[in-house]
Amino acid sequence: MTYVVGVDFGTLSGRAVVVRAADGEEVGTAVHEYPHGVIEGELPASGERLPAQWALQDPDDWIDVLRTAVPAAVAAAGIAPERVVGIGTDFTASTPLPVLRDGTPLCRVPGLERRPHAYPKLWKHHAAQRHADRVNEVAEERGEPWLSRYGGRISSEWEFAKALQVLDEDPEMYARCERWIEGADWIVWQLCGAETRNVCTAGYKAIHQDGRYPSEDYLRALDERFADFVAAKLEAPLWPLGARAGGLTAQAAGWTGLREGIAVSVGNVDAHVTAPAARVIEPGQMLAVMGTSTCHIMLGDALAEVPGMCGVVPGGVVPGLYGYEAGQSGVGDIFAWLVEHAVPPRYHDEARARGLDLHSHLSELAARQEVGRHGLIALDWNNGNRSVLVDHELSGLIVGLTLATRAEDIYRALIEATAFGTRKILDAFAEAGLPVEEFFVAGGLVKNPLVMQIYADVLRMPLHVGGSDQGPALGAAMHAAVAAGLYPDIRAAAETMSKLVRDAYLPDERNADAYDQLYAHYERLHDHFGRGGDDVMHALRDLRPREVARG
Amino acid sequence: MTYVVGVDFGTLSGRAVVVRAADGEEVGTAVHEYPHGVIEGELPASGERLPAQWALQDPDDWIDVLRTAVPAAVAAAGIAPERVVGIGTDFTASTPLPVLRDGTPLCRVPGLERRPHAYPKLWKHHAAQRHADRVNEVAEERGEPWLSRYGGRISSEWEFAKALQVLDEDPEMYARCERWIEGADWIVWQLCGAETRNVCTAGYKAIHQDGRYPSEDYLRALDERFADFVAAKLEAPLWPLGARAGGLTAQAAGWTGLREGIAVSVGNVDAHVTAPAARVIEPGQMLAVMGTSTCHIMLGDALAEVPGMCGVVPGGVVPGLYGYEAGQSGVGDIFAWLVEHAVPPRYHDEARARGLDLHSHLSELAARQEVGRHGLIALDWNNGNRSVLVDHELSGLIVGLTLATRAEDIYRALIEATAFGTRKILDAFAEAGLPVEEFFVAGGLVKNPLVMQIYADVLRMPLHVGGSDQGPALGAAMHAAVAAGLYPDIRAAAETMSKLVRDAYLPDERNADAYDQLYAHYERLHDHFGRGGDDVMHALRDLRPREVARG
Repeated sequence: MTYVVGVDFGTLSGRAVVVRAADGEEVGTAVHEYPHGVIEGELPASGERLPAQWALQDPDDWIDVLRTAVPAAVAAAGIAPERVVGIGTDFTASTPLPVLRDGTPLCRVPGLERRPHAYPKLWKHHAAQRHADRVNEVAEERGEPWLSRYGGRISSEWEFAKALQVLDEDPEMYARCERWIEGADWIVWQLCGAETRNVCTAGYKAIHQDGRYPSEDYLRALDERFADFVAAKLEAPLWPLGARAGGLTAQAAGWTGLREGIAVSVGNVDAHVTAPAARVIEPGQMLAVMGTSTCHIMLGDALAEVPGMCGVVPGGVVPGLYGYEAGQSGVGDIFAWLVEHAVPPRYHDEARARGLDLHSHLSELAARQEVGRHGLIALDWNNGNRSVLVDHELSGLIVGLTLATRAEDIYRALIEATAFGTRKILDAFAEAGLPVEEFFVAGGLVKNPLVMQIYADVLRMPLHVGGSDQGPALGAAMHAAVAAGLYPDIRAAAETMSKLVRDAYLPDERNADAYDQLYAHYERLHDHFGRGGDDVMHALRDLRPREVARG
Repeated sequence: MTYVVGVDFGTLSGRAVVVRAADGEEVGTAVHEYPHGVIEGELPASGERLPAQWALQDPDDWIDVLRTAVPAAVAAAGIAPERVVGIGTDFTASTPLPVLRDGTPLCRVPGLERRPHAYPKLWKHHAAQRHADRVNEVAEERGEPWLSRYGGRISSEWEFAKALQVLDEDPEMYARCERWIEGADWIVWQLCGAETRNVCTAGYKAIHQDGRYPSEDYLRALDERFADFVAAKLEAPLWPLGARAGGLTAQAAGWTGLREGIAVSVGNVDAHVTAPAARVIEPGQMLAVMGTSTCHIMLGDALAEVPGMCGVVPGGVVPGLYGYEAGQSGVGDIFAWLVEHAVPPRYHDEARARGLDLHSHLSELAARQEVGRHGLIALDWNNGNRSVLVDHELSGLIVGLTLATRAEDIYRALIEATAFGTRKILDAFAEAGLPVEEFFVAGGLVKNPLVMQIYADVLRMPLHVGGSDQGPALGAAMHAAVAAGLYPDIRAAAETMSKLVRDAYLPDERNADAYDQLYAHYERLHDHFGRGGDDVMHALRDLRPREVARG
């Protein structure tokens, strides 16, 4: 019996899972909450007040996960640590940090711990919008060919915008930064003692396309001082997913309690690594990782430019296939907004009396309704629109409200709106020549049967549900198994180790017919408010205070 | 010292007020709740289940008001009953009932008390929509000239639709009905012993225009059996408002404790009688009676056809002037919907801790915001649109929702939406050549300073606030004073007896400028969804169950 360990580095905590290599059985798990959590508000080292929309992390928290969660998971599994033959990781992204040539984060360099720009910028650090705007403007002016690979828009969350912010606001910190690296690659560096860069984050977050990063000329056009950014701080060989980055160092063996020298796989990203964990390994398959937001991972055997996609990267998910990413910036977040901010006390009391959480209570009430009976249609843009409109300044809309509208009606309408948004994305892929043939789901929302059934009905497709509660950690462990040589590639590992319930939800034809009608209305509203028929959402956005904006 | 009594017959109760004739001082008041309230659900006499959207009343409840509230108000005033020289009334409308030639309601005729169609149909009885549709279709086909006096649409609430329903569903009851009369005129009959018909309900609710009711030919086109409806059951001389209908009968003196023979003024309607109570007596003045819905009463010295008005009647409010009526079918109702159905527990707790009701708490929070900062615009059609679109199948819309939207934001946006709806009505009057020169408000919502200030800012007009908490009863008492000969006409009575705070709210120029911008967006949404740009609201209406519809 041999085992592999997968470690999933999330936004608030890290989770380690011990997996049996032969069949993917998850035999032990442990979670470690980051002591510093998300650093927003103020910087702990100085008490300095951080500006709005900042979100940092402390890399020591990540090392703590290796020291505590990994040994705890092994202990929970009740196995001898020697039986673990590989360790793999996945990370939030883009979460880049400035480090010295030896990998030391600038925030750990004595004297720099009080400099906000010395810390990792978490994916949801949204203070670099100005810099992202410049990245996009200059790329458009110069007609950079890579821009269309990202739906025409580089996000403020990604590496270039965040690095430009450092240069702009703390040039000394930019100068002290010898390498600019994703947390995904930095944690692998800590495990195996060598810098590697993975093809996934390089492609999706650092604009690596057609074998190269953006040109020096482009970088100079952004800022004279930025011209050598790629050459000096980024450039390095890229490693395919599932490759062995190196062997576990003595130091990391000491942290984790695992054997020195076991395989460490190259870095990966939480959503992307979930695809093979749910057996999404063939062209035409799409995975939706559904949580607060939804990330869509689609595999294809050809290169296409899909309107509003977040990125396309060859080998970005599974070696040998094009990996496409799309997204909806608000999904579970929108349902949570309703539950927290627009449900009256009566429902809270009823849920309590029934021993249910409010989501379950509302879902049960909403599930009793026939399609369309609430008479509502919503646009799911309460947190902007990522795909296919790529417009973060859009906002939510509800139409059809009457004096008889109740909380469960709105709850159901919001779920339907996000399902319509997903259908819009599938339509965009199909129109670009990449029809989605099979639809897979993973993430926290798969636990809500109402959400699942509505998606099956709206898409008129069976839903295949990823069967692990720890999809990302399982996926990371599968990559460790490949890196350890237990499987020839990630497809083979996925065939044996993945967890999947096929056809978990089947579309109801009558509901699907009814949703076709509602979707036609959704599309008309979508185009009217999203494509310039009425620009009211932008006008309203301009009236709202910028300091409470969300990116 | 002489006094007059005004009695306001509302939906759930009747209120009597004793008023000093010399200056309008309200010296005593009493309320009597109707024992039967609104009869919906089941008929008390039989336990029979009433169909959806029925709403009946029991005329005995109205007589009880005369027997209890009037003497109680006189007692509360501490005056000798002999000092009361006149009594006036106002009523909900259209609330018609079938009676015998002597005024006996059919529901009091032995053997008929178990027949639902023998009872008065309250204004909000909405089960005659089918019949109203026929009234309108036939009028359009025949090009009846009176249709445009009602914004092109006769309501299901009014006399003809309700009478047609009786004919259609209980022809025997229709045959037994010798007179079809408004509660407003029936109560006067009970007081003075003679049938009179007032010009106000005849004009606004019974399609009396240019000196006549709809023609026999038209009635025959509706239904052969309906041809003599006007001649047999309706026709009678019309009396101007403020006229003396007769003297108090011995029986009514016994009920009320007032002197036999004192002046009884002709019937009137609650909203309309409020106009002189708030000193709205000149052309160019508009009164908005703001409660669950809003009724607009506008005076003009010329006849115009205003799109979407509810009706225009010469002398319908003040003798000698054209009285125009318009309306918004949901106002306070919409705010109440939010408070009841979309505000989370935290706000309820905070309001309780502060000893405030939830409306006051939300209003205070919303009042702190600068105009537009919530980033929302709503359409105020949650209960349909009465003026100017005259379309009850429209519904509410909110645009601009984000994850940062809070209850007070939506509360404020809904108030603003109703203010924009009012502005739209003022625009329609101005475009028809009847600019509103002064704007007066009365009704329950005048107690909310946030609502008042928003209306002043959106309309960019001072708000003059009717100063009586019992506007309708005061207005009724003023008409009694005219009928008793204490004043030559209602204008003279209003100048002395009315209550008004002029310039109670003044527009803030900066807010008014900001609202001009938002109003432009409201107008675009209004026309897009209300005038055929996107017919989604009607499509959604068709999906909703009809049995919970509101008229």
